[in-house]
Amino acid sequence: MLSIGVDIGGTKIAAGVVDEDGEIIATTTRSTPATDPEQLETAVADAVAELRGAHEIAGIGVGAAGFIGADRRTVRFAANLAWRDHPLAERLESLTGLPVVVENDANAAGWAEYRFGAATEARHMLMLTVGTGLGGAIVQDGVMLRGSAGFAGEVAHMVVVPDGQWCGCGLRGCLEQYTAGTALVRAAKRRAAAGDALMGPLVQAAGGDGRAIDGPLVTGLAQQGDPGARELIAEIGAWLGRGAATISALLDPEVIVVGGGVAAAGDLLLGPAREAFAQNLTARAHRPLARFVPASMGNRAGIVGAADLAR
Amino acid sequence: MLSIGVDIGGTKIAAGVVDEDGEIIATTTRSTPATDPEQLETAVADAVAELRGAHEIAGIGVGAAGFIGADRRTVRFAANLAWRDHPLAERLESLTGLPVVVENDANAAGWAEYRFGAATEARHMLMLTVGTGLGGAIVQDGVMLRGSAGFAGEVAHMVVVPDGQWCGCGLRGCLEQYTAGTALVRAAKRRAAAGDALMGPLVQAAGGDGRAIDGPLVTGLAQQGDPGARELIAEIGAWLGRGAATISALLDPEVIVVGGGVAAAGDLLLGPAREAFAQNLTARAHRPLARFVPASMGNRAGIVGAADLAR
Amino acid sequence: MLSIGVDIGGTKIAAGVVDEDGEIIATTTRSTPATDPEQLETAVADAVAELRGAHEIAGIGVGAAGFIGADRRTVRFAANLAWRDHPLAERLESLTGLPVVVENDANAAGWAEYRFGAATEARHMLMLTVGTGLGGAIVQDGVMLRGSAGFAGEVAHMVVVPDGQWCGCGLRGCLEQYTAGTALVRAAKRRAAAGDALMGPLVQAAGGDGRAIDGPLVTGLAQQGDPGARELIAEIGAWLGRGAATISALLDPEVIVVGGGVAAAGDLLLGPAREAFAQNLTARAHRPLARFVPASMGNRAGIVGAADLAR
Amino acid sequence: MLSIGVDIGGTKIAAGVVDEDGEIIATTTRSTPATDPEQLETAVADAVAELRGAHEIAGIGVGAAGFIGADRRTVRFAANLAWRDHPLAERLESLTGLPVVVENDANAAGWAEYRFGAATEARHMLMLTVGTGLGGAIVQDGVMLRGSAGFAGEVAHMVVVPDGQWCGCGLRGCLEQYTAGTALVRAAKRRAAAGDALMGPLVQAAGGDGRAIDGPLVTGLAQQGDPGARELIAEIGAWLGRGAATISALLDPEVIVVGGGVAAAGDLLLGPAREAFAQNLTARAHRPLARFVPASMGNRAGIVGAADLAR
Repeated sequence: MLSIGVDIGGTKIAAGVVDEDGEIIATTTRSTPATDPEQLETAVADAVAELRGAHEIAGIGVGAAGFIGADRRTVRFAANLAWRDHPLAERLESLTGLPVVVENDANAAGWAEYRFGAATEARHMLMLTVGTGLGGAIVQDGVMLRGSAGFAGEVAHMVVVPDGQWCGCGLRGCLEQYTAGTALVRAAKRRAAAGDALMGPLVQAAGGDGRAIDGPLVTGLAQQGDPGARELIAEIGAWLGRGAATISALLDPEVIVVGGGVAAAGDLLLGPAREAFAQNLTARAHRPLARFVPASMGNRAGIVGAADLAR
Repeated sequence: MLSIGVDIGGTKIAAGVVDEDGEIIATTTRSTPATDPEQLETAVADAVAELRGAHEIAGIGVGAAGFIGADRRTVRFAANLAWRDHPLAERLESLTGLPVVVENDANAAGWAEYRFGAATEARHMLMLTVGTGLGGAIVQDGVMLRGSAGFAGEVAHMVVVPDGQWCGCGLRGCLEQYTAGTALVRAAKRRAAAGDALMGPLVQAAGGDGRAIDGPLVTGLAQQGDPGARELIAEIGAWLGRGAATISALLDPEVIVVGGGVAAAGDLLLGPAREAFAQNLTARAHRPLARFVPASMGNRAGIVGAADLAR
Repeated sequence: MLSIGVDIGGTKIAAGVVDEDGEIIATTTRSTPATDPEQLETAVADAVAELRGAHEIAGIGVGAAGFIGADRRTVRFAANLAWRDHPLAERLESLTGLPVVVENDANAAGWAEYRFGAATEARHMLMLTVGTGLGGAIVQDGVMLRGSAGFAGEVAHMVVVPDGQWCGCGLRGCLEQYTAGTALVRAAKRRAAAGDALMGPLVQAAGGDGRAIDGPLVTGLAQQGDPGARELIAEIGAWLGRGAATISALLDPEVIVVGGGVAAAGDLLLGPAREAFAQNLTARAHRPLARFVPASMGNRAGIVGAADLAR
Repeated sequence: MLSIGVDIGGTKIAAGVVDEDGEIIATTTRSTPATDPEQLETAVADAVAELRGAHEIAGIGVGAAGFIGADRRTVRFAANLAWRDHPLAERLESLTGLPVVVENDANAAGWAEYRFGAATEARHMLMLTVGTGLGGAIVQDGVMLRGSAGFAGEVAHMVVVPDGQWCGCGLRGCLEQYTAGTALVRAAKRRAAAGDALMGPLVQAAGGDGRAIDGPLVTGLAQQGDPGARELIAEIGAWLGRGAATISALLDPEVIVVGGGVAAAGDLLLGPAREAFAQNLTARAHRPLARFVPASMGNRAGIVGAADLAR
C-alpha cells in the first residue's frame, strides 16, 4: 500500500510516494508560498496530483513545523507560516479527494527513524532534531506520543536554566537556547565581538567579520580541528546531553536519535552529549544507559515519516 | 473480578481486596520488616492469605517505592528496602499461588486517580505525589508510561537548577530538592537558624527549637494564616508549577493531579502552582492550560491502583 | 576654588563651572562628534573656553563612559566612542592649558552624590546608575575605589546567573542583563510577542506594536497603576536588590544610591529592591541594613562629580 | 617596634611577638575554651603575659573568625565562639594593660600576605582563604577594606547560583558552597553514595566507606594523579576562578592570593581557577589579568597580620 508524504518547509515543499518499507519511489518539490495559506494548499495539491498519476495512493501525510492539533487535522499555530487554527487536513482532502493526516514535522522525522532508520530495534525512542531550532519526537512502546492537545514532544521549551537566555516563545532558559544552531552561532558571534582569541580562526574564515559566522562555518572548522569551533560544538553537545538526561528521568528511552543540520558535526557533538548524559542521568548506576545514535534517514525522514503515519 | 492490592510502605504494609469499580471491600495491614526481604515477603503473603479467605481473587498487584523493572516483576533498586535486582513477583507467586505484578508506588497511586479518582475524565494525566520526596506517574492516551527499563515518571530527578541543591541521587538541582516535604522543612530550618524573623512563629510552634520544625507544623500554621509558613508552602508550590510546565512541554497532559502529604495544604500549594505553571508554559496563548486538581483517593490510592493494574 | 566638569555623553557634551559647594554657576553644551576623537576634543576645548571667560578655573574634570586608566588620564576602551588607549587628559591639557583628570562617568556621578547629594552623611557608599545600561561607583571610607587598572566598580558585569542571558561583553548572565533599561524593554517586548495578556496595555500604549515599547512607556504606565508594567519594573528592582546584596557581602556600604533613567520609577523600583536586598543579604540578623535612596543630583551629577574630582 | 599577634582558632590560640619586618621572634599557644568567653580572654591574656616577659610590646592585634565591628574592638557575631556584641578589645586591654585591636582572621591573614608575603609588590590585592569555609580580604591602594559595619570582604556569601545549594547563613547558592573544603568533601561523598565509578579510588582510600572521605584524602589522591580527586579539586578551582572574576569586576585587583588548607593542592586548584577567571572576566581583551598566586606565609599569616595591624 502506497501513501504520499509531504514535508512543508519554510522555503520548499517536498513530497514523495512511499511504500510500506519506507522507500521513496517518486518525489517532487514546490517552493513554499509562506504568506498565503490558499496558495500553499494549492501547491501541495499540485504536487500530490503529479505524484498520483502513476501510483495508487491510500492517503496523504503532511508534516509541518508548528503546533498540530491532537485530531491530526488542524494547525493550531505555526511560527513561520500564516496559519492559526487552520483546518489543513479538511482543505487538502477537498482538494485531493484523499484522506489526509497532519503531523508536526519533528514527529514525522522521528517516526521515520523509529520505523525505518536509526531506532528500528527500539520500542522506546527519543529523537532530537538539532537544526536552527530544536525539535523532538517521543515514541513509547511503539506509540508516538502526541499529548492531549497534540503539543507533546516540545523539548525545545523545557526550561533548563532559570532566568536564562530569553527565548522567542516568551520564556527564559529554554533548552533550545542552549542546544540549537541559533545558539551555536550566537555564542560564536558574541565571543568574537568580545575579542575572544579562541574565536580568531572563525572570524578569519568569516572574511574578517565575526557577524558573518554561520553554522556550517563552525562545523567545517571544527572538523578541521579548530579548538574554538570544537569548543562551541562541544558546549551545544553537553547541553543536549543534559537535556536528554532530564527527559530520560521522565521517559526512560532506550535510544536517543540525534538528527538535524548541527548533527553533521557527528561525534564532535555526540561525544560531549554522551558524556554529559551519563553525568546527569539519575540512578545511572542502576540502569542501562540509552544509546545516542545519529539519525540515518537524512532529509528523507520528513516525507517517509509523514507518509507512514498516514497509513 | 476481584484483585488484591498491596502497598508496601517504609513502616507499614497495607493490603486490600478491590473490585472492578475501585472499591476496597476488605483490608488488612502488617508492619514492614524493612531490612529482611524474606520476612517482608512472608508478611505480604500472610496479609494476602488473610484477605483471600472470603473472596475469589484473580491476582495481586504490589506497589513499592523504588525502581521496578519493565517486566513488572523485579525490583531493580529500592532506597529504603533491602532489594537489589530482586525477583519479587516470582517470590510472591510461589508463596501465594496467585499471579503477581509489581509497580512503582507512585505509578500505582497515579493509576488509581486516573481510573477512579481525580482524573477519570482525562486521557492524558500527570500525577505528582508531594510527600517526603516527589513521585510521578504519567498516563498518555489511557496508557501508563513505564519506559524501556521501567524507570519512566521519575519527575523527582529532572534537573531544574544547574549546580543547584545536592540530591541524594548524586545529581544537583533535582526537582525533588525544590518541591517535596524534605525541601519544605529544610528551608524552614535553614531560615530559622539564620534568624529570619518570618520564621519566628514556626520556631515558637516547634517549642522554641527551629530544628524541631516538621511538615505538618508548617502546613498547620499556614492554614492558620501564618505568613512565613504560607511563604514556605507557596515556594514549594511555585516550583511544582514550574516543574509541571517543563513536563507539559514534553507530555502535554490535560490534568495534573497533586497528591501526597504536602498536598494537604490545598490551595496554599495549588494556587502558586497554577500561577507558576501558567507563567512557565510555552505557547500558553495557543493551548488550553492543564487543570491542577487535588488527588481524591487519599491513602487508598496505592492499594486500589496496584490492584487494578494487576487485572 | 572653581573647576570645570565635563560630561561626555553619546549625543551631548555638557560642561559647567562648579564651586566648592557643588553648585553649578555656569553651563554650556555641545553636540558629541562620536566618531572623530579630534573633533570631540576640539568641542570640549571650545566649551571650556566659553566657560573660562568669566571665571578663574583651577582644573578640568572629564567624565566619560568607558574604561578609564588608573592614571585618570587615559581612555582604555569606550564602547560608543572612537577611543582605544587614548591620552585624553594630555590632549585636553595641550588644548586648554589647564590640568585635566578623566573619570568614568558612573564614578563621577557617584562622587557627586557622595559629596553633595543623597549620600552626604555616609562614609561608605554604593551607587547604582540604572539607565540603558547599569553603572556603578564605590566609595569606601571617603575614597573612590578605582582598582589597579582603573576598572573597579563595573557592577554591570558581575555574573549573577550562570549560563544566563548573553551580554554584549561576551559573558553570560551579567547583572546588567537583569537590571538595566535594556533588560526592562527586552522583557516587555518578548512577553508581548509571546501573547502575554499582562502586556496588553503596554502594546496598546505602543500603538498596537509591541516592538515599539520603550522604557519611558513602561515607567509611565507603571505610575498609572498598570499591573504588567509594575511587574516588569518590580522584576528589575528585585534583581537590583539581589545584586546589591552580593555587592554588600563584599563591600558593606551604609547607603546605596540609585540613579539613572529607570530610577524615575521611584518606589516602584526601590520597594522591590529593598525587599530583595533584605532577603539576600548574608548575616542580616547581625548587621544594619544599608539604606536604598534615590539619587538627588539628577543630570547635574556628571558635571559636578567630574569637577569636584578635578580639585 | 614589636607587637603581639594573636590568632584565635576553633581549637587553638596561637600568639607571637612580631617585629616590623613581619618576623615572628617568639611564640606560644593555648587551647581554645570555645564556650566560655571569660576563660578565653584569660587564656589570651596568659599567652600575652608569657610573651611580654622578654620584649617591649607596643600593642596587641587579635584575629578571630566572625563579624568584627568597624571600631575594631567588638565581636558582633561569631559562629563557633560564644560571642555576641562582645567588647573583646576592652576586656583584653583591662587584662593586659596594652592597646588592643581586633580583626577578622581572614583580614589578618590577607594583611600579612600583602605586607610581607605573596602580594608585597601589589597595591590592590584580593586574598581568598580556602579552608573548611571560604574567607576573603581586600586591600585597595594599600588600605584594608572594612566596610561601614566592619563586614566587608565576606566573599563566602556572594550569591553565585540563584536557588543553589543552601548555605548555613540562610541564603542559597553562596560562593562558599561551591569553593571551600566542605563543598569539596560533600561533592565527593554524594557522588560516592550514588555509585559514581570515578569516586572508586577515594572510597577505597577511605577504607571502603565513602562517608569517611575528607579533604586531605582528596588532595593526597589528586597529587598522586587520581582522575576523580583531580576532577573534584578542579571543580572547586573553577568556581574560585568564576567568583574571583565577579569580584574583579567590582574591585579590579592586580593580584589574587589563594591560601588555606585546600590551597595545598597547588596548581591542581590554581590552574582551573586561572582558566575560569580568564573566561569569566569582563573586558578581558582590554585589561591586564590579575595574577593568581599561592599564599606564602602559611600558618604564620594570622599572627603576623594581626600584629602588624595593631601598629
